[in-house]
Amino acid sequence: MAKKNQKMVSEITAMDVDFAQWYTDIVKKAELISYTSVKGCMVIRPYGYAIWERMQQILDTRFKETGHENVNMPMFIPESLLQKEKDHVEGFAPEVAWVTYGGSEKLEERLCVRPTSETLFCDHYADIIHSYRDLPKLYNQWVSVVRWEKTTRPFLRSREFLWQEGHTIHATAEEAMEETVRMLNIYAEFCEKSLAMPVVKGQKTESDKFAGAVSTYAIEAMMHDGKALQAGTSHYFGDGFAKAFRIQFAGKDNKLTYPHQTSWGVTTRLIGAVIMTHGDDNGLVLPPAVAPIQAVIVPIAQHKQGVLEKAEELYEALREKGIRVKLDDSDNTPGWKFAQYEMKGVPVRIEIGPKDIENHQCVVATRYNGEKQTVALDTAYAALCDMVAELLEQKIPAGMFAKALENRRNKTYVCTSMDEITKALEEHGDGFVEAMWCGDEACEDQVKEKTGVGSRCMPLEQRHISDTCVCCGKPAKHMVLWGKAY
Amino acid sequence: MAKKNQKMVSEITAMDVDFAQWYTDIVKKAELISYTSVKGCMVIRPYGYAIWERMQQILDTRFKETGHENVNMPMFIPESLLQKEKDHVEGFAPEVAWVTYGGSEKLEERLCVRPTSETLFCDHYADIIHSYRDLPKLYNQWVSVVRWEKTTRPFLRSREFLWQEGHTIHATAEEAMEETVRMLNIYAEFCEKSLAMPVVKGQKTESDKFAGAVSTYAIEAMMHDGKALQAGTSHYFGDGFAKAFRIQFAGKDNKLTYPHQTSWGVTTRLIGAVIMTHGDDNGLVLPPAVAPIQAVIVPIAQHKQGVLEKAEELYEALREKGIRVKLDDSDNTPGWKFAQYEMKGVPVRIEIGPKDIENHQCVVATRYNGEKQTVALDTAYAALCDMVAELLEQKIPAGMFAKALENRRNKTYVCTSMDEITKALEEHGDGFVEAMWCGDEACEDQVKEKTGVGSRCMPLEQRHISDTCVCCGKPAKHMVLWGKAY
Repeated sequence: MAKKNQKMVSEITAMDVDFAQWYTDIVKKAELISYTSVKGCMVIRPYGYAIWERMQQILDTRFKETGHENVNMPMFIPESLLQKEKDHVEGFAPEVAWVTYGGSEKLEERLCVRPTSETLFCDHYADIIHSYRDLPKLYNQWVSVVRWEKTTRPFLRSREFLWQEGHTIHATAEEAMEETVRMLNIYAEFCEKSLAMPVVKGQKTESDKFAGAVSTYAIEAMMHDGKALQAGTSHYFGDGFAKAFRIQFAGKDNKLTYPHQTSWGVTTRLIGAVIMTHGDDNGLVLPPAVAPIQAVIVPIAQHKQGVLEKAEELYEALREKGIRVKLDDSDNTPGWKFAQYEMKGVPVRIEIGPKDIENHQCVVATRYNGEKQTVALDTAYAALCDMVAELLEQKIPAGMFAKALENRRNKTYVCTSMDEITKALEEHGDGFVEAMWCGDEACEDQVKEKTGVGSRCMPLEQRHISDTCVCCGKPAKHMVLWGKAY
Repeated sequence: MAKKNQKMVSEITAMDVDFAQWYTDIVKKAELISYTSVKGCMVIRPYGYAIWERMQQILDTRFKETGHENVNMPMFIPESLLQKEKDHVEGFAPEVAWVTYGGSEKLEERLCVRPTSETLFCDHYADIIHSYRDLPKLYNQWVSVVRWEKTTRPFLRSREFLWQEGHTIHATAEEAMEETVRMLNIYAEFCEKSLAMPVVKGQKTESDKFAGAVSTYAIEAMMHDGKALQAGTSHYFGDGFAKAFRIQFAGKDNKLTYPHQTSWGVTTRLIGAVIMTHGDDNGLVLPPAVAPIQAVIVPIAQHKQGVLEKAEELYEALREKGIRVKLDDSDNTPGWKFAQYEMKGVPVRIEIGPKDIENHQCVVATRYNGEKQTVALDTAYAALCDMVAELLEQKIPAGMFAKALENRRNKTYVCTSMDEITKALEEHGDGFVEAMWCGDEACEDQVKEKTGVGSRCMPLEQRHISDTCVCCGKPAKHMVLWGKAY
C-alpha cells in the first residue's frame, strides 16, 4: 500500500514544471473526468459531477430567490431559425454540429445542436408574449450545449459542456439592463463566497462581446499561473432579437412595442477554475461549499481496540451537525488515505488513533494550508463539531480567498507604456495588466500582437492610471484589464 | 373577467367527447408545454418543468439512498460504438438523429445523438473496471435523449425527451438481477406513493423487451380511458454487453470474468401519465407530492377591509408549515381564479371572505373530488395548517389512488377465450385484459391482430385464470396483462 501511495503521488506533474500537465493529471487522478471515444467530449465522473451538483444547487436557489423559473427548450435549432439574427448566426454557425439525418431519412432542413438558445427562447417569446401583462419573463435552463472546438481541454474547452443559460425579457431597456448587472453580481458573489475565487467584474470590448449582444459583461478570474479565465458572462441584447423575431407587446396605452432581452450563463468550466485557482502539487483543493466530502475521518492503527468505535462516534456527531463527512475504514494505510484525500481536495481531515483516544483528543488538518491542530474531545464532541463547522463555513473559505487574492495582487501589473507591459510580463511571468485604452480596436489588436496579452474586460471599478492610451498615446477612455486567457 | 373565465373553461374538450383532444387542451391550457418550430420537440414551460423538478428530487433522493451516483456522459455516440452490440444497434439505429457535420467540415465518422446510453457506459466501464474491487458501479444520469419518432404527442412520445437512465455493473448475475428488481420496485413505489397512480409490475415478453436485454421489466399504469401506459422500465443485460465491449475484471482468484449489467429509466412521460390518470373536465389534477403549488388562497371580496390581511396571515402560517402555498391577490375575479387553479390542478384551494372572517372560519376545497369543508380559525391557524398538511400528505393521495384503482378495477376484464376478450372490450370499452398465454409469439401476435390488445407484461403477481392459452388452447405458461398502449 505504501508503494501505491508513492506511485500515486509521484505521478502528478509539479505545477511549476508543467502547469498544463499538472492540470490534466489532477482531473484524471482526482477522478473528475474520463476521456471517451468521442473526441472533445468527456465523462464527468461521480466526484466531478457531485461538485457540479453542489454548484447547481447554490446557483439554482439564488436564481429562484430572484424570481427566475426553470424551463426546458429543445436541443435542436432549425437552420432557418438560427439565421434570423444576423450577428448571432455569423458568430455561431462556424462552430455548430449539424444533424442531417433522422434514422435513414435525410432531413428537409438541417438542425444544429444548440450552441446557445437565444433563438429558441425568442421563438417561444413570440408565441407567448402579447401584452405588457406577459412581462417580464425570467427564465433559466440547465442543459448541455455543443460547440465544435478544434482544440479541447477537460472543463475548460470541450465540444459538449454543461451549463445554465438564463434568458429574460422585459418591457423596458432599464429593466433589462438592471437584470444584466444583477446576474453578473450574483455570479461574482457565488465565485467569491462559494468558490473562494476573487473575480473582476467588467464589460467586454466591442470586439469581444457575444454575437448579437449590445453589451457583454463578464467576471474574470486569475488562475494560479497568472492566466485569466472568463468565469461567467451576462449579456444585454437591447431589442435587436425582438426585432429579428418580431416579438412585440401591447403596452398599457395599447401601442405595440419591442421588449428588451438579456441572457447569462456559467458552465462546468467553473470546475476547471476551481482546480487552477486553488490546487497545489498534492492535488485538488476544494472550497467547502462545493466539496462532495467536506471532512474525512482517517483512523490510525484502526485494528487496535476502540479506534473504529471512536471514529464512528465522531462520524455520527459530524453528520448530525450537517457536515458532509466520510469515515474511511478501508484496509488501505493511513499514508495512502492521506495522499488520496489530499488529491481529492477534501477540505478537512480528522485523524484519530490510540494515543489520541488516550489523551481525549483528535487531530484536525486543513487541506489548503496543511495546518494541523489538536482538538480536545468532550463527551458529545460539541467542541470538535463547532470547530469543523467554523473551519468549513468561515476560516477555510476566507483563507483560500485571501491566498488567491494574494496571488492575483502579486501578478497584477499597472503599466503606462507598451514597454512596461513587456517588461512586467518578462520579469514576473503571466499576470493581469492594468493599462489605459483609447477605445480603438486597432490599439486593442496591437497590444495583443506586441505583448501577448489581450483585453479581458473594462472593469466596472475604473481607476485612472494615466491620461493616454498605452498603445497610441491618444486620450484614454477606459482602464482595461489585459491578460492571456484560457 | 367573468367572460374570460367562461371562455377558458369552455375551450377544454370534454374527456368523453374526445380524450386525445382533452389531453392536448390540458397540456396547453395548464401551460405545461408549448409547441416549437422544431417538429416533435416541445418547450417544457415553468409549470410543467416544476412538476418534473419535483419528480427528479424525489427519485434522485431514492437513487442516492440506494447507493447510486450521478454522472454525465457525452450526448454523441460514434456509429462504430453504437454498432458493437448487435441487437442494440438493430433496435435503435432506425430511429436516431445523425450528426454529419461539425461547422463546415464533414465528420470522418458520423455521430448519433444518444437514444439511450448503454454503449457509452460500456465504453467507460471498459476503461475503469479491472478488478473485483472496482465493482459494483451504480450510476445514473439525468439528461435528454432523442428518438426520431414519426408521430409525436407532448410528454407521451416526442423526438427529444427528458429522463434519467440508471446503469449499473456487478460482479455476479444474482446481484445484477437483484438491482433490476430493486429499481422496478422503487419506480412502482414512487408511482403509487408520490403520483397516486396504481401500477402493475411485470416482465415483458421476448418480442417486447429492450434491444440487447436478457429480460425487461416494466410498470404498467391504466389511464382514465382504459388504455395502458408503460411508466418505467428496468432491464437485466446479463453479460452480453460486457462481452461485446470486452469488459472484464480479475476476481479474488485472479481469473478474468465478465461482469453483469442493468439499466433502468423513467421519463417526462410520467407527466403525461399523471394528466391521464387523474385529470378531469376542469383540467389537471396534481398529486400533492409533485404539485408546484400545493394550496392556493383565493380571497373573496378582497377590496373589503381585513380580507387581504387575513389571507396573508393564512399564507404565512401555511408557508411556515412547509406547504407550497400561493396567495392570489391579483385583480381577477374569484370565479376566474377558481377555474384557473382547477385547470392547473392545485390540490387544495382555501377561500376566505368577509363572512368567513366574521365567523372565524375559512373554506377548504379539494381539487380531486371537489369537496368543500368549513374550518374554524384559531389564533395561530394551527388547526387549518394541520388539516391542510393531512390532506396533502395523506387524504388526497390516498383518495386519488383509490379513485384510480377503482377505474382500473372497473376496466380490467378476466377472459378465458378470444371471444370473451372481444366481447368485454366491445361492452365496456378499452381496458386491461387478464388472460393466459402459452408463451408462443404467434399467439401473442394473433391476440393483438384479432382483438386489438397487445401483451403489456407478464405480471410478477401471477394468477391462475385457466389451464390453457387464450389463443391456441395449448397448456398455458403465463398470465398476461393485455391492453392497448400509449
